[in-house]
Amino acid sequence: MPGQTLDDIRELAQQLRVDSIRCSTAAGSGHPTSSMSAADLMAVLMVRHLRYDWQRPEDPANDHLIFSKGHASPLLYSMFKAAGVVSDEELMTGYRRFGSRLEGHPTPILPWVDVATGSLGQGLPDGVGVALAGRYLDELPYRVWVLCGDSETAEGSIWEALDKAAYYRLSNLTAIVDVNRLGQRGPTELGWDLDTYAKRAEAFGCQAIVIDGHDLGEIDKALAQAAGADRPTVIVARTRKGRGFSEVEDREGWHGRPLPEPMAERAILELGGERHLTVSGPRPDGGSPRAWPSGQVSLPRYELGAKVATRLAFGQALAAVGARGDVVALDGEVDNSTHLEEFAKAHPERYFEIFIAEQQLIAAAVGLSVRGYVPFAATFAAFLTRAYDFIRMSAISAANIRLCGSHAGTEIGADGPSQMALEDLAMMRAVHGSTVVYPSDATSAAYLVQEMAERSGVVYMRTTRGAYPVLYGPDVAFPVGGAKVVRSSPGDQVTLIGAGVTLHNCLAAADQLGGEGISARVIDLYSVKPIDTQALLQAAAATADRLVVAEDHYPEGGIGCAVLDAFNDAGHPVRIRHLAVRDLPGSGTPVELMAAAGISAQQIAQAARDALSG
Amino acid sequence: MPGQTLDDIRELAQQLRVDSIRCSTAAGSGHPTSSMSAADLMAVLMVRHLRYDWQRPEDPANDHLIFSKGHASPLLYSMFKAAGVVSDEELMTGYRRFGSRLEGHPTPILPWVDVATGSLGQGLPDGVGVALAGRYLDELPYRVWVLCGDSETAEGSIWEALDKAAYYRLSNLTAIVDVNRLGQRGPTELGWDLDTYAKRAEAFGCQAIVIDGHDLGEIDKALAQAAGADRPTVIVARTRKGRGFSEVEDREGWHGRPLPEPMAERAILELGGERHLTVSGPRPDGGSPRAWPSGQVSLPRYELGAKVATRLAFGQALAAVGARGDVVALDGEVDNSTHLEEFAKAHPERYFEIFIAEQQLIAAAVGLSVRGYVPFAATFAAFLTRAYDFIRMSAISAANIRLCGSHAGTEIGADGPSQMALEDLAMMRAVHGSTVVYPSDATSAAYLVQEMAERSGVVYMRTTRGAYPVLYGPDVAFPVGGAKVVRSSPGDQVTLIGAGVTLHNCLAAADQLGGEGISARVIDLYSVKPIDTQALLQAAAATADRLVVAEDHYPEGGIGCAVLDAFNDAGHPVRIRHLAVRDLPGSGTPVELMAAAGISAQQIAQAARDALSG
Repeated sequence: MPGQTLDDIRELAQQLRVDSIRCSTAAGSGHPTSSMSAADLMAVLMVRHLRYDWQRPEDPANDHLIFSKGHASPLLYSMFKAAGVVSDEELMTGYRRFGSRLEGHPTPILPWVDVATGSLGQGLPDGVGVALAGRYLDELPYRVWVLCGDSETAEGSIWEALDKAAYYRLSNLTAIVDVNRLGQRGPTELGWDLDTYAKRAEAFGCQAIVIDGHDLGEIDKALAQAAGADRPTVIVARTRKGRGFSEVEDREGWHGRPLPEPMAERAILELGGERHLTVSGPRPDGGSPRAWPSGQVSLPRYELGAKVATRLAFGQALAAVGARGDVVALDGEVDNSTHLEEFAKAHPERYFEIFIAEQQLIAAAVGLSVRGYVPFAATFAAFLTRAYDFIRMSAISAANIRLCGSHAGTEIGADGPSQMALEDLAMMRAVHGSTVVYPSDATSAAYLVQEMAERSGVVYMRTTRGAYPVLYGPDVAFPVGGAKVVRSSPGDQVTLIGAGVTLHNCLAAADQLGGEGISARVIDLYSVKPIDTQALLQAAAATADRLVVAEDHYPEGGIGCAVLDAFNDAGHPVRIRHLAVRDLPGSGTPVELMAAAGISAQQIAQAARDALSG
Repeated sequence: MPGQTLDDIRELAQQLRVDSIRCSTAAGSGHPTSSMSAADLMAVLMVRHLRYDWQRPEDPANDHLIFSKGHASPLLYSMFKAAGVVSDEELMTGYRRFGSRLEGHPTPILPWVDVATGSLGQGLPDGVGVALAGRYLDELPYRVWVLCGDSETAEGSIWEALDKAAYYRLSNLTAIVDVNRLGQRGPTELGWDLDTYAKRAEAFGCQAIVIDGHDLGEIDKALAQAAGADRPTVIVARTRKGRGFSEVEDREGWHGRPLPEPMAERAILELGGERHLTVSGPRPDGGSPRAWPSGQVSLPRYELGAKVATRLAFGQALAAVGARGDVVALDGEVDNSTHLEEFAKAHPERYFEIFIAEQQLIAAAVGLSVRGYVPFAATFAAFLTRAYDFIRMSAISAANIRLCGSHAGTEIGADGPSQMALEDLAMMRAVHGSTVVYPSDATSAAYLVQEMAERSGVVYMRTTRGAYPVLYGPDVAFPVGGAKVVRSSPGDQVTLIGAGVTLHNCLAAADQLGGEGISARVIDLYSVKPIDTQALLQAAAATADRLVVAEDHYPEGGIGCAVLDAFNDAGHPVRIRHLAVRDLPGSGTPVELMAAAGISAQQIAQAARDALSG
């Protein structure tokens, strides 16, 4: 594409429309009309404003383009064709096909895609994370452009994102809202009430620019204005769904429907036929990200028997691991509870306060991970449920994020069930490719924090509120996937399996049983996923398959389930005595609540006796 | 409290402060300072505006008071004392104690509490649901007053709530934001920037009133103005945390900390000492909720062998169940996908479009359930993950809500993983007291919709995108907790267990095996929780413990786990061949994707052969 006149850009926009139609009609599914509304916006962006080296997507100086409205993938992939990095053939034969990288919604299998989208309201929050990296860590002038749908502004996460974008003065972030007024099932809440969109964006601290999203000159001016602003920009663009093809333009009933073959032919005709233009837009300015010096990590050491909460050890260890210059931390306004404040004190310049917005908390971590940082995000484990969709999607994004959830289980005591994580292990285990660790003491917690930094995917640590004795000397290793036999003797008759606070209860139970002449093996199952199947099999073999599992979690999907799965996968079915929280807890002391839940030392000992007699 | 002068109210406010201090100091935990900031607001509300019969909390004409900032429970319980329904003794000896109904955060164990709060940003969305009921269903003039914290406005769910409140013109809803400028760990994002709060609320379509939250006259005027508005109101009240006790007022470091005994004494002195006033505020206007006539439910009938998607059967059955006047439905802007549109067509006046705001979708259901309606909320199952915190909390609220998640698993095909629910069963099983059903055909889906309406707690149905043959005649019953042996013979050698689409794959596998002379029993595990342990035990006994479980879900926490748990709980450990989705899927056809996941008929048959030879 030699010149860059608006007429040239208009041609490109028509090509993007035609290709969006062609690929979705060929696939027999997809969202051409949602692509057509945004084609003008993206054509101008691509030709004049997106500073991107398509041959070097790994260039740190590149701008970032995120399709928060991931269903407009035909448009995005058509842009890739126009950029010369995806062939017309791949577009026509690959889109939505099995084994192809051109999936129904974008995923980072494609080198030009930062994050998976398709669950609405996530691309913009993710973009906030990338923009944070640009402004505060990379210190590079790249811009983050996010194409949003109008329907997705109904998601609260969009407002969490704009709020944080303004709070952090992310002038490098631009949201382009494609207000085509039609959602999946009919008109959106706000229709073409552009002023209300603008008012909301302004109220949330952003510059709002209202434009006709099909006027190339207006688009160009708005994008330039966004790039020069001192705060985040929201471009509110009035568009028409299916723009350019009179039979569907601004009509209901065409969401997520490819045009049937004859209609597609008429559409392509009306749009001026196929084109095969190639674009080269502006190049990145160059430059390298700020180099954050790394020092030696020296983990905190804890004295055997001293009472230290694992949440405190998490914070202290993370402060130590922060000697690595790539480690960053994000708080959900509870850093004095999670003890993430230890990191804040040590490394304030790599610390981001996200306040009480757990969805944005996770999305910011995902965005930081896009730029290669090693983010740790922490809040109460119970409140990570608030961000489950984001956690799920981050697995599809192949993001490397580390999460810490504190205040697990009934052990928290008086605050009551709203603050107790009792389903977090089920939730986190079910995330694709996840790692779940649950240390029982400060030493193992500290070690595992360092392990987390090395690990890819979604990595979750569950910590406990109360302080319990340090069980391990400072030189013991806790590799992910391992387990510790904390107590054993040749004559063990039963195995007690716990993690976190229940390990301490298991140890106390073993003491009780010992007093009765019953020898109990105790296993610290600090790595819930992956799990140490060998350790379990050995313990089962040594104790005649007599096994007790105690967990401060609901019975479904947690440690008991992990143990049963492990034995099942090993082809060695066993019966476990499974102690878990079966009733809805209330308030009380930790001891009262654990007894009420049936996971106290006494109850574990009783289950062991039952196993021996049963 | 005889008069109702502002001086009287001031006395009450001081009492509420003193009691908040007393009960939290006695308990040794709690949030007195967060209570003290809002005491003036609540005192005026209680004396002059909250139309509530404290002796008859079940009166449908009562106003509703929701503490979205649930940590201010000392204030709420002190109000209950002032109302004469909780004794001073109960307050002092019960608060946060084991077995007491005065839990750390409010729960509906208390008859004056509608919903459990404590996970921030939920009380207001719940209130939207109650207000929807008042305006559109009960048609009663009660008002819904929600006390919000300032920190929780960082949660996107608050903006989902205000957006929907304005969309539905819920003039009966007032949010009172206690802007004490201090969060848990330090200052909030916006501090005392009341104008920004107001601008945001106005931009979201609400009336905003900015006041001094310690000026009783201003409070009174604002509450009156709220009651007379034609749209929802947000009162933005500037307050001081710990108001009234100079040693903590507006100071950092006092969130969630009771005053130590000597400080508490000084505080009570400064606040004018203990009081034991009893208040009687305005009474409800009386009146009865609109009676929605109920007709006979006549479920749709499907022809054996006809191909019908379970999502369609869900919609059609719900339209039929809508003959009951108490059934209402809520859509997340996908009703043409979930087929909730069938209900919308049949019962438009009991249908609420929540647009793409899944948190508000669930919260609205919870609020409607407060008023005794039977809400069904539906969206893609994958997107229910967006609302997991709300679902978890609704169990603590003892809310009766019915959820339908469509487009389960890899079976959806081309749209790709962002749209596939692959962790929903794990998530839903882990909810306290939940019910999880997963029909395989239209007949069972329809039957189960009717069962759902009768069931309490969180009740979840998973539906499938594609159309598969009807397996059951219209007169077969599918009680929750049951299972169907779809195929069996005396010589069965192996049991194949599936649900949803995998049941069809199991049947095809049984056909294949039959061709090889292997007789397979097939179980339709339509009730995943509770599960039919007897049917499983019988099948295991009949087929020498040779069991194959196939599920279109990640391996953790789903059907395989439910089956292992059932056998374990029955004391009969078995090995299952567990086919589940182990890799991250992409796009493709349903057949391609199920084969790639290893859950196709061929692979089920192979697992059965392995079980026979292994």
